[in-house]
Amino acid sequence: MAEEAAGGGLLHRRNLLRLGAATAAAGATAGAAKAQSVGSGSPTWMTHPGATISGYGAPTHWRDAVKRIGVPNPSAPGTGGSRTPIHMLEGAITPSGLHFERHHNGVPDIDPARHELLIHGLVRQPLIFTLDTLMRYPMQSRVRFIECAGNSGVLNRPEPAQVTAGDINGLIANSEWTGIKLSTLLDEAGVAPGAAWVIAEGADAAGMSRSIPLGRCMDDAMIALYQNGEAIRPEQGFPMRLLVPGIQGNANVKWLRRLKVTAVPANTKDETSRYSELMPDGHARQFMLTMGVKSVITRPSFGLTLNGPGFYEISGLAWSGDGRIHRVEVSVDGGKSWADAELAEPVLSKAVVRFRAPWMWDGGPATLLSRAQDHTGAVQPTRAEWLAQYAPGQGYHFNAIQAWGVSPDGKVANVYA
Amino acid sequence: MAEEAAGGGLLHRRNLLRLGAATAAAGATAGAAKAQSVGSGSPTWMTHPGATISGYGAPTHWRDAVKRIGVPNPSAPGTGGSRTPIHMLEGAITPSGLHFERHHNGVPDIDPARHELLIHGLVRQPLIFTLDTLMRYPMQSRVRFIECAGNSGVLNRPEPAQVTAGDINGLIANSEWTGIKLSTLLDEAGVAPGAAWVIAEGADAAGMSRSIPLGRCMDDAMIALYQNGEAIRPEQGFPMRLLVPGIQGNANVKWLRRLKVTAVPANTKDETSRYSELMPDGHARQFMLTMGVKSVITRPSFGLTLNGPGFYEISGLAWSGDGRIHRVEVSVDGGKSWADAELAEPVLSKAVVRFRAPWMWDGGPATLLSRAQDHTGAVQPTRAEWLAQYAPGQGYHFNAIQAWGVSPDGKVANVYA
Repeated sequence: MAEEAAGGGLLHRRNLLRLGAATAAAGATAGAAKAQSVGSGSPTWMTHPGATISGYGAPTHWRDAVKRIGVPNPSAPGTGGSRTPIHMLEGAITPSGLHFERHHNGVPDIDPARHELLIHGLVRQPLIFTLDTLMRYPMQSRVRFIECAGNSGVLNRPEPAQVTAGDINGLIANSEWTGIKLSTLLDEAGVAPGAAWVIAEGADAAGMSRSIPLGRCMDDAMIALYQNGEAIRPEQGFPMRLLVPGIQGNANVKWLRRLKVTAVPANTKDETSRYSELMPDGHARQFMLTMGVKSVITRPSFGLTLNGPGFYEISGLAWSGDGRIHRVEVSVDGGKSWADAELAEPVLSKAVVRFRAPWMWDGGPATLLSRAQDHTGAVQPTRAEWLAQYAPGQGYHFNAIQAWGVSPDGKVANVYA
Repeated sequence: MAEEAAGGGLLHRRNLLRLGAATAAAGATAGAAKAQSVGSGSPTWMTHPGATISGYGAPTHWRDAVKRIGVPNPSAPGTGGSRTPIHMLEGAITPSGLHFERHHNGVPDIDPARHELLIHGLVRQPLIFTLDTLMRYPMQSRVRFIECAGNSGVLNRPEPAQVTAGDINGLIANSEWTGIKLSTLLDEAGVAPGAAWVIAEGADAAGMSRSIPLGRCMDDAMIALYQNGEAIRPEQGFPMRLLVPGIQGNANVKWLRRLKVTAVPANTKDETSRYSELMPDGHARQFMLTMGVKSVITRPSFGLTLNGPGFYEISGLAWSGDGRIHRVEVSVDGGKSWADAELAEPVLSKAVVRFRAPWMWDGGPATLLSRAQDHTGAVQPTRAEWLAQYAPGQGYHFNAIQAWGVSPDGKVANVYA
C-alpha cells in the first residue's frame, strides 16, 4: 500500500503512480471499471452532425447549475452580491462569467466613449484620460485575486452554517488583469509634496469611493482594462477599474472615474459606515486593506458526497494579500497531523493557487482542514484566535482555518474544529 | 528624449517612466488631455441604479464586435472553423467564449452521464472510465496553447491578404486546462511491450481520429475536464478532450471516447487526407505534430489605424510547441535593427506569452516584425526560408516571421518583408 504522509490516510504525492493498481487491488471505487462491452449502439451525437460554429461560446447546458450564487433584493435590486461557486470549479482562473459580484447601486451601463478618468488633487498637472488615450500607454498583465472583505464572514456565527463552500467563501475570484500601471499616470500628473492618499471614485450610482495609501498606488496598482484577455466585464468595472493587488475587493474601485491625490484619507461613507472592523474595545479599525493569508478546501466540501471509501483528491484554493503562498498543509484528523499539499505551478504573488493532496479514505469519520502560509511567514489563525481579535459579530477579514467534517455515509458538513 | 533600443524609434523599457513627460513636451497625442472641466452634467449611469446581479455574466454589449471570426458553410454547417479575434484581445489567456473552433462534423451535444472513455489495445487490462470515475483521480492544471496546424496558412499565397491578425493567425488560443495526467491512466491499464502509438478517437459524428506517439502520451499529456476553471466548453470537447501540449490542434482530440494503444500509427483519414505536408519532392510528411516557435504582433496590425505620430506600444503573442519562449525581438525598420521585447511573466512552457515593446513613431513609413526564439534555440524562419521547405501551396505549420507595414497616414497593411 501507499506510504502515509499524515494520519487518516493522507498520502505522499510520490505514491500516486502506484495508486491505480493499489485501488484496483483493494477493490476500492476510485479505479476505472474493467472494460466489458464497448457501448450498445451509437449515441445520436456520433451519428448526426453537431452544431455549427458560433461567434461567442457559452458553457454547456449540462452544467446549467454552475451559476453565481445570489438572490437579488427586490426592494433594492442594485445592492448585494453574488458568489463564485468555487466548489464546482477547478484550476486557479475564475471564468469571467462566474466572477463574484458586489454592487452598491447596481451595474452601470457606461458608454466607453463618454467615460473619462480624472487625476487631480495634489498633483502638478491635473489630467483627464479617455479610454482611447489610455490605450496608447504601456500595459502589463498580472494574474491577481480579488476578495471581498466580507468573504467567509458567516463563519463568525456561533453555529456552522450548512451551506456550500461557494456560499461561505465564494467572494473570491482570480483573473488575468491587463492595464496601465497606475504609477505611470501619477508620474505624468506629478505627485506634489505632502501627498499621502489617493481617493478613488466610481462612476456608478453609488459613487463608491475609497481612500488608498499613495504608496500602494505607486507600487503594483493598475488601471485594469482587460479581464482574462477581453474587455473587463460590466460587473467588474467596464470600461476600467482600479486594481490594487491584495487589498479588499471594494477598494479596487470599479467603473473608475476619479483619482484625487490628497494628504489625508477622505473617510467616505464606504469606509466608515462599512468596511471597517469593530474591535473588542469598541473602537472601529479603518483601512485594514490587505486581505490575509487564507485557504479553503473546495473538494470534498458541503454538498459533495463521497461515494464510499477509497482514493480521493483533496483540492482547494489558497491566497494571500501579502504575496506568494509558501505552503499549504492539509489534515484529515482535525489537526492532529498535517501533510504538505502540492501547489499547482505557477505560484504567483497575490494570486490564487490551487493546492491538492492525495487521500485514501478508510470510510471512518474525518475532519478536513487546510492551513496556508505565505512567504512572509504568516499562517492562518485558528477560528478561536481569529474571533479573539474582534468584537462579537465582526465578520470582515475572516481568514481562519476552516474545517469540513466527513461522516461514514460520505456526507460532508461544515464544522468548527 | 528617450534613448533608442533599435532603429525607427524602438525604445528601451527603462525609458518608460520618462515617456509621459516626454510625449507631453513633444506635443504628441499619447499623453492625456490637461484637465479643463469635469464633465457637464452627470450621465444617467451615475444618477440611476444599475442592473442587478446575474447567474452567469456576459461581455459588455459595447464590445459586440469582439466575436470569433467565421462564417458557417451552408452546405455542411458542421465543418470549418472560427478564429480568435486576437487583434482585439490583450493579455495571454483566451476567454473561453472566444477560443477558436475547428470542427469536422459539428459540435456534439454529449450527455456526460452516458459518455465513456475506453483505453484498450496493447494494454494489460482494458479500462472504461466514466466522468464520475475520472473525477476521483488526481488532477493537474496547466496553462497551455492549442494551435491549429492550418493557422496562418494564408501567408503561403503570393500576395499578402489584407485582413486582420485574427483572420490570419486566429487559430491559436491559450487556456488553463485541468484534468488527469494521461500517464496515470495508461499506467493503470498497463502498457504492454511493443506499444509505440496511441490512437485517439472522438465521439463526434466525424469520428475524428489521430495517432500520437506513446512517448508524448506518457509525458505531459492529460485528459482535460476543465478549461479556465469551469467545465470544458462544448466546442472544446465537453465532457473531455485529449491535451498533448505543443502538438497541432486536431491531434488534441475533442470529445475523447477511445484511446487504443498500438505498435504502429493508424493512418486515419484525418492524418492522410489532411494534416500531412506536401514536400518539394512530392512526398507527404506525416506526424510532424509539434507546432514550431512563432510570434505575431497584434497591436498595431491590419485594421487598427495609428492616430498620428507619437508613442505606441507594440504588443503581440509568442509561443512554441517545444517549450518556453526565451526571447522575442521586434523591428520597426523591416529587420535592419532589432530590440528585445518584454515578456510578460510568468513565461510558461508550451503556453502563449504576451510580449510588448515601446515605440516612438516618427510618422514615417515603418515595417514591423517580430521574431521569437524558444529555449531550444529555435528561431522563427523568414518567409522565404519557410516556403523553401515545402511544395508550393502547402500551408500547414506556417511559423515564419510576419510583417505589418505602417504608412504615414497610420494605416497598417499585411506585407511580405
